[in-house]
Amino acid sequence: MTSTEAASTELRDLLLSRIRDVADYPQPGVMFKDITPLLADPVAFNALVDALAGLCARHAATQVVGLEARGFILAAPAAARARLGFVPVRKAGKLPGPTLAQGYALEYGTAEIEVHADAFGPGDRVIVIDDVLATGGTAEAALDLIGRTGATVVGVAMLMELTALGGRERLAPVLKGVPLDALVAV
Amino acid sequence: MTSTEAASTELRDLLLSRIRDVADYPQPGVMFKDITPLLADPVAFNALVDALAGLCARHAATQVVGLEARGFILAAPAAARARLGFVPVRKAGKLPGPTLAQGYALEYGTAEIEVHADAFGPGDRVIVIDDVLATGGTAEAALDLIGRTGATVVGVAMLMELTALGGRERLAPVLKGVPLDALVAV
Repeated sequence: MTSTEAASTELRDLLLSRIRDVADYPQPGVMFKDITPLLADPVAFNALVDALAGLCARHAATQVVGLEARGFILAAPAAARARLGFVPVRKAGKLPGPTLAQGYALEYGTAEIEVHADAFGPGDRVIVIDDVLATGGTAEAALDLIGRTGATVVGVAMLMELTALGGRERLAPVLKGVPLDALVAV
Repeated sequence: MTSTEAASTELRDLLLSRIRDVADYPQPGVMFKDITPLLADPVAFNALVDALAGLCARHAATQVVGLEARGFILAAPAAARARLGFVPVRKAGKLPGPTLAQGYALEYGTAEIEVHADAFGPGDRVIVIDDVLATGGTAEAALDLIGRTGATVVGVAMLMELTALGGRERLAPVLKGVPLDALVAV
């Protein structure tokens, strides 16, 4: 699903009006999309949470996964509003129980994410929520990781897709038709 | 406020029943209180969010601050449910705009947290939400940090207080009577 189907024009305009550009962050030449003004605005934040909770319902999800750390800020309220449980996917070493881990490549070096090995039960239908789809590296690792738990990923929902970075194309072979929704695309 | 006033017996029992002990995490000899089973349970998670949103309303907060990273999981849904904006306090280097920073001591070494310098406006009434009150070091730094922005902290709300670690006593001089609510105490 493209962003034009996942959000109305009014919602897209509202969300985009609360995302600010910050030049040269995290490094010179990069224009960072800062969502903190959106989070701070009760009307825009609630509209965002409503839209994400709506996607949880549309895909008949039973659990909502948030990716550390900014993904927590969107996924946890979406889970609460959709009356679903929340499961964190965290950076390595942050979860206390037995975990499954998944490494992935960064621009420079590698990273690893984890989920509790007992986070999901048979028949669980998981939606993965994060703030930004950039190159898709973290999302790809999360999809691989959740797949290894035995749960079924039924959707991936992003606030924002940076289309020039090709994340959607990278994820296509992993998604195998599972919907990838982005509320806004820039 | 003590935990007996911030939550009913029924709520406390529900929350405690979904917090599991993990031995020897993050280091040998420590019994870690793992809240992920609570987050994964839609009924318990929603009851928690309701209670936190109720504290936001009781203190007439205008903004909800969450402390990275687990605090995001509780503070963001509380903000959404209370129809308030959410402001992240993050670890150093994670916020793109101009920030204020506050250092604090850890058991071994030091850490630093930041907030956007423009996060609050005149008259803002801030509630700070985190998952666990342990020694109080992070909360103390957050209170100092928010105080420097010019906003008024009107409450601190924690899911869980580890009473043996003395965080409440440490925070008392900084709180100057501002309520510190813990839904459960262990």
